[in-house]
Amino acid sequence: MTSENMIRIGIAGLGTVGIGVVKILNRHQAVLAERSGVALNITAVSARDRSRDRGIETSGFRFEPDALVLAEAPDVDIVVELIGGADGVAYDLVKGALQNGKHVVTANKALLALHGTELAEIAEANNAAINFEAAIAGGIPIVKALREGLAGNRFNRVYGILNGTCNYILTEMEQTGRDFSDVLAEAQELGYAEADPSFDIDGVDAAHKLALLASLAYGARVDFSAVHIEGIRHIQAIDIAFAKELGYRIKLLAIAAERGEGIEQRVHCCMVPVDTPIAHVDGVFNAVVADGDFVDTTVFEGRGAGEGPTASAVVGDIIDIARGNRVPTFSVPVTSLRTIDTVSVASRIGRAYIRLHVVDRPGVIADIAAVLRDEAVSISTLVQRGRASGPNGGVPVVLITHEGVESALTRALERIAALQVVLETPRMIRIESF
Amino acid sequence: MTSENMIRIGIAGLGTVGIGVVKILNRHQAVLAERSGVALNITAVSARDRSRDRGIETSGFRFEPDALVLAEAPDVDIVVELIGGADGVAYDLVKGALQNGKHVVTANKALLALHGTELAEIAEANNAAINFEAAIAGGIPIVKALREGLAGNRFNRVYGILNGTCNYILTEMEQTGRDFSDVLAEAQELGYAEADPSFDIDGVDAAHKLALLASLAYGARVDFSAVHIEGIRHIQAIDIAFAKELGYRIKLLAIAAERGEGIEQRVHCCMVPVDTPIAHVDGVFNAVVADGDFVDTTVFEGRGAGEGPTASAVVGDIIDIARGNRVPTFSVPVTSLRTIDTVSVASRIGRAYIRLHVVDRPGVIADIAAVLRDEAVSISTLVQRGRASGPNGGVPVVLITHEGVESALTRALERIAALQVVLETPRMIRIESF
Repeated sequence: MTSENMIRIGIAGLGTVGIGVVKILNRHQAVLAERSGVALNITAVSARDRSRDRGIETSGFRFEPDALVLAEAPDVDIVVELIGGADGVAYDLVKGALQNGKHVVTANKALLALHGTELAEIAEANNAAINFEAAIAGGIPIVKALREGLAGNRFNRVYGILNGTCNYILTEMEQTGRDFSDVLAEAQELGYAEADPSFDIDGVDAAHKLALLASLAYGARVDFSAVHIEGIRHIQAIDIAFAKELGYRIKLLAIAAERGEGIEQRVHCCMVPVDTPIAHVDGVFNAVVADGDFVDTTVFEGRGAGEGPTASAVVGDIIDIARGNRVPTFSVPVTSLRTIDTVSVASRIGRAYIRLHVVDRPGVIADIAAVLRDEAVSISTLVQRGRASGPNGGVPVVLITHEGVESALTRALERIAALQVVLETPRMIRIESF
Repeated sequence: MTSENMIRIGIAGLGTVGIGVVKILNRHQAVLAERSGVALNITAVSARDRSRDRGIETSGFRFEPDALVLAEAPDVDIVVELIGGADGVAYDLVKGALQNGKHVVTANKALLALHGTELAEIAEANNAAINFEAAIAGGIPIVKALREGLAGNRFNRVYGILNGTCNYILTEMEQTGRDFSDVLAEAQELGYAEADPSFDIDGVDAAHKLALLASLAYGARVDFSAVHIEGIRHIQAIDIAFAKELGYRIKLLAIAAERGEGIEQRVHCCMVPVDTPIAHVDGVFNAVVADGDFVDTTVFEGRGAGEGPTASAVVGDIIDIARGNRVPTFSVPVTSLRTIDTVSVASRIGRAYIRLHVVDRPGVIADIAAVLRDEAVSISTLVQRGRASGPNGGVPVVLITHEGVESALTRALERIAALQVVLETPRMIRIESF
C-alpha cells in the first residue's frame, strides 16, 4: 500500500489513551477505512518502557525510544501526542512535527493553554492541522461543535463541568455527607484522583480547558493567564448540606462569557439550581453548555476522561485529517485571532452564598448586617440554625445575597472577617442561575 | 469580488428558517467570512410570494419565482432547499442542483428519508455535498457528531426525542394533568402544532429523522419503510398519572439499535425512569443519545426547531462547504452503504406497562393472569386502584411486566382484549431503561 491511499500514524505515549487509540484502530480497521476514504495505519510508536505489558500487541509497529524522532520520520503523516505536560518533550515534538508539515492530534490541554496560539501559527504556516478534541471533555465532541456545527453563532456564554475528578468528589460529598479530605483520599485509592491531586482539585486542569474553549468560541488568542481560578478544597460538608436545603447543587464550573468589551474566564465552585440540566451531571461525567445567539442553549454531556472516550476523540480527529478536512485551529486563522480584554471577576454581577462561623450571642447578626449595608450588599435570605457546637463554640450563619457587584461583596467580607465575633474566614460560593 | 473568494448562495423557501438564514448571514457577515475563509453571499432567493413582508430586507437578492432556476443558476454555488416535502419541487431542485455539481444544504427530512440514498449517489457522482444538519433535531449538531466527532465508534444504540410538538404535548399533559385532545388544541392555537397535526403526533416526522440517524450511525442505506411507527394519540391522562406514580415519564422516543444481525428502528412512546437524563428533556427541546463502543454514552440536547436553531444548523453546513470540507453523506461512500436486515419490534425483549379497563368484580384478575401465564408473560407489578367509576363502569388495572419478548405479549393482549370482562382495548407502553 502506498502513501496515496493510507494515512500513517505515529503515536507518542502508550498510556491509557494511547492504548485506547491502538484498540480502536485495530478493532474498527475496515469501517474506519470506509469512513476515512483511506486506510489508517500505525507505523511507529514511542513510550518510556518498551517491554511493559499493555495488554495489546504492539510488536507490529516500529518502536522509537526517542519520541522526537516521530517529528522527523518520513513514514509518519500524523503525530499523535499523548505524552502530556506544557513543555519539554511534548512541546518539542508537536512543534517539530508541525514545522515538518506533519499533522498533530493531541490530548494535551496544558500544552495548548500555554502555547496554543504559537503552535496554531506554526501549523498554519506549514499547512498542517493541530486537532485537540481529546483535550477538552474527553468523549464530548465540543471542539467540533464550537468551531464547526455552531459556527453560525456568536456565543453569549460557554460553560461546563470540565474536570471529572472534582465532579466525582463533589458528587460523593453530596451523596454521602462526608467531608472533602475523606472523599479525596478514597478517590485517590480508586484511581479517580492523582497522588498529587492539586492540578485537578485546585482548578488548573479545568482552567486549561476553559482557556481553549474561550479561544474557540470567541476567536481569541489563547490566554490562560486571564483565567480566574479557584478549586474545591474549601468546600465543606456543611456547604453541601446548606446548598441542598436551599435548592442548589455545588459544581466546579468553568465559565467563559462575553461581557461588555471583553471576555470573562473563570473556574470556581458555583451553586446551581437543582432544576438546571448541569446540576444533574454527576460523578466522572463532563458537560458543556453553549449559548449561541441563534441556536439558543445547547447541552453536551459525556465521559470526560478514560481510555475509550479520550481515544474516541483522538480517532475522530485522525479521521478528519484523513478525509482532508481542515478547520482553523481556534475557529479563525491566527492572523484574525483577537486579543480581547479580560473582564475581572471583581466586576461580576450576581448572587452569592456566604457562610460565616460566628459567636453565638445577641447582636452578632446586627454587626454583620451593618457592614453589608455599608457596602451596599443586599441580603435575600439569612439562615441561622442550631446553637453553639462548632470546634470553637460558634454557630454557622448562611446568607444569600441579591444580585450585586462582586467587588462590593469582597470588601464587605474582608470587613466581616475582621469582626471579633466572626471566628473563621467567611466562605463565599457564587450562585449561577443561567 | 470574484467567485474565487466567495461562496454564492441561493435560498429556495423564505419561511421561518429561510428568514433565519438571511438574518445570520447578515448579522455575522464579517466573522463568518473569517471562519469560512471566504465571503458568504446570498445571490438569489425564491419564494411563493415575493411581496410578503418578512421583516427582513431581501431586495438585494435576485428573486426567482421558479425555485428550479436555482439548480441551473451560474451564480449559485450552494442551493439551500427550505421548501419541504418528500417529492415535487424540493426533490426536483435538489436533484437538479446536485446533477449540476452544486452543493445542497437542506432541512428536509422527508425528502432524505425517502430519497436519501439516491440523492447521496448523485451528489457523490458530481463531487457535490448534500448537508442536512438542520433536518434532525434543529440546533443540535448531531449529524456532525455521528459522522465525524464520534466516527471512531461502532454505535450500540442511537435514540432520542426528535419531535418537539409531541414532547411539548406530553410535557403539558404531565404538568397540567389534562388530556391529549385538550392539550393538542391549545398547541395548535399557540402554533406549536400544525392545523393537520398528524405528521407530528403520529410519529412520521420523528421516523423520517430516525431513518437518517440510523443510516448515519450504521453506514446503511436509508430505509424509512423499516421504521416501526407509533404516535402519541393513545396516551391518556391516566397513563401519565400512573407513569408518575411508578417512577417513570412518558416520552415519544425514536430508537435505532444494532441487534443480532440487523438494525431495529422504532418510534413509539416509552416509559423512561425519572432519573435518566432523557426524562428531563421537556417542552420543545430535543435530545439525542449516542452509545458508542468506545465513547460510551454521550447526550446532546437543544432546541429542535424554530427560526434561530434551524438556521444555525443550515449556516454551519454552509460554512463546512465554504471551508472545502466534505464528508460522505451517510458517513461512508454510497457504494459502501450496507443493506441491513430489519429487526422487527415483535422480537424486542423488554418490559412493558399495560393498562386494562375491566369489570369491577372478583375473578377478573385471575382470568387475566391465566392468559399471561399461558403466553409466558411474567408480571412484576400489578396496581388496581379505586372502584368502578369509568365511563362504562369499569376500573383500571395496571400491570408492569418483567423482561420478555414482545410477540408473546402481543398474543396475550389479543386474548385479553377478547375477554368479556375487559371493556376497552388494552393499552401498552414499552418501558426502556437504557
